[in-house]
Amino acid sequence: MPDVATGTRERIVERTAELLRERGYAGTGLKAISIGAGAPFGSVYHFFPDGKEELAAAALRHAADGYATRVSDVLAEAGYDPVAATRHAFAHAAQVLVDTDFADACPIATVALEVASSNETLRQVTAEIFEGWLAALDAWLGATGLDAETARRLSTLFLAALEGGFLLSRSAQDPAPMLALGESVADAVGSALRDRPGSPSAG
Amino acid sequence: MPDVATGTRERIVERTAELLRERGYAGTGLKAISIGAGAPFGSVYHFFPDGKEELAAAALRHAADGYATRVSDVLAEAGYDPVAATRHAFAHAAQVLVDTDFADACPIATVALEVASSNETLRQVTAEIFEGWLAALDAWLGATGLDAETARRLSTLFLAALEGGFLLSRSAQDPAPMLALGESVADAVGSALRDRPGSPSAG
Repeated sequence: MPDVATGTRERIVERTAELLRERGYAGTGLKAISIGAGAPFGSVYHFFPDGKEELAAAALRHAADGYATRVSDVLAEAGYDPVAATRHAFAHAAQVLVDTDFADACPIATVALEVASSNETLRQVTAEIFEGWLAALDAWLGATGLDAETARRLSTLFLAALEGGFLLSRSAQDPAPMLALGESVADAVGSALRDRPGSPSAG
Repeated sequence: MPDVATGTRERIVERTAELLRERGYAGTGLKAISIGAGAPFGSVYHFFPDGKEELAAAALRHAADGYATRVSDVLAEAGYDPVAATRHAFAHAAQVLVDTDFADACPIATVALEVASSNETLRQVTAEIFEGWLAALDAWLGATGLDAETARRLSTLFLAALEGGFLLSRSAQDPAPMLALGESVADAVGSALRDRPGSPSAG
């Protein structure tokens, strides 16, 4: 029954990703994963014989792919104006926070901070994920003609502000920080585009 | 022996703050606190009869006060140029990360993400801490003549970028994201100062 088996593995991975986002790595137990996924305890070890760390790595990568697709889709909704798309992406993140009682945020950050100094395997997984997201933002911004160094500086600001926005807005249960950050990052993107060589307003 | 008693309580609070920063709330046990503080298990309950949550709240507030003082001192080192001070604060944070093997970062963020949707008491403690930090940055920026709304927008960017910088630099074990963010936030502060009413270059 390959379909059933595949479905069980997917349920385990998805439920793990949810628990990691909500509770972090230390707060997520295999028993809660087993119950949440509706899968026997033994099947968790069947699919992930190395246990919690291996499962967490798979869940983080799975969640990161899904999140990158979401952000990419949201950016594309605003058409090809990077300033408007940036503002739209932060406004969208703020709205999702409000709609989900401030629960639906970055699926990686909680674990990334938790493991940065305590679990080298998972630290490397989170580093690869963030680098993948930054590279995707680099490519998106680079298509406007920005040089690679400027694109990376803006990608870093975009991602750091989004992550800082999740932190401040979730903690305060208030979308205002995320919305204000969208304005600031959009300003920075607009300023860099005006400063491009050949731009009508470049100094 | 009031001095000895005070010393024990302080050691418990400080060790708890360190463990929360390094491992998060779920990963910090009272036994590890007791051992780390060199204090009998019973004395933890003596000083914090309500247990781990009460102790964590005290430790977060203690760590937040210390961190605010550190950031304030670092900003003051650069003299009264907010643009230079901003760049200096981010460069300092990057250097501390390098010097401490990327361990010494914000003492609140790890726990704040972890408890945002799972522990309302501690969520409120982290919200009060972030609001206190933002208010201090508002006052620092407001002294330059920026209006309150602009000051809060920049304070939010400063704090969110610092927190996002800790996340990205710790995960990558690379000071580059924090340094790049310092340039971006300094640019935003400089731009807002130039746009002040009465500024020679205001549009």
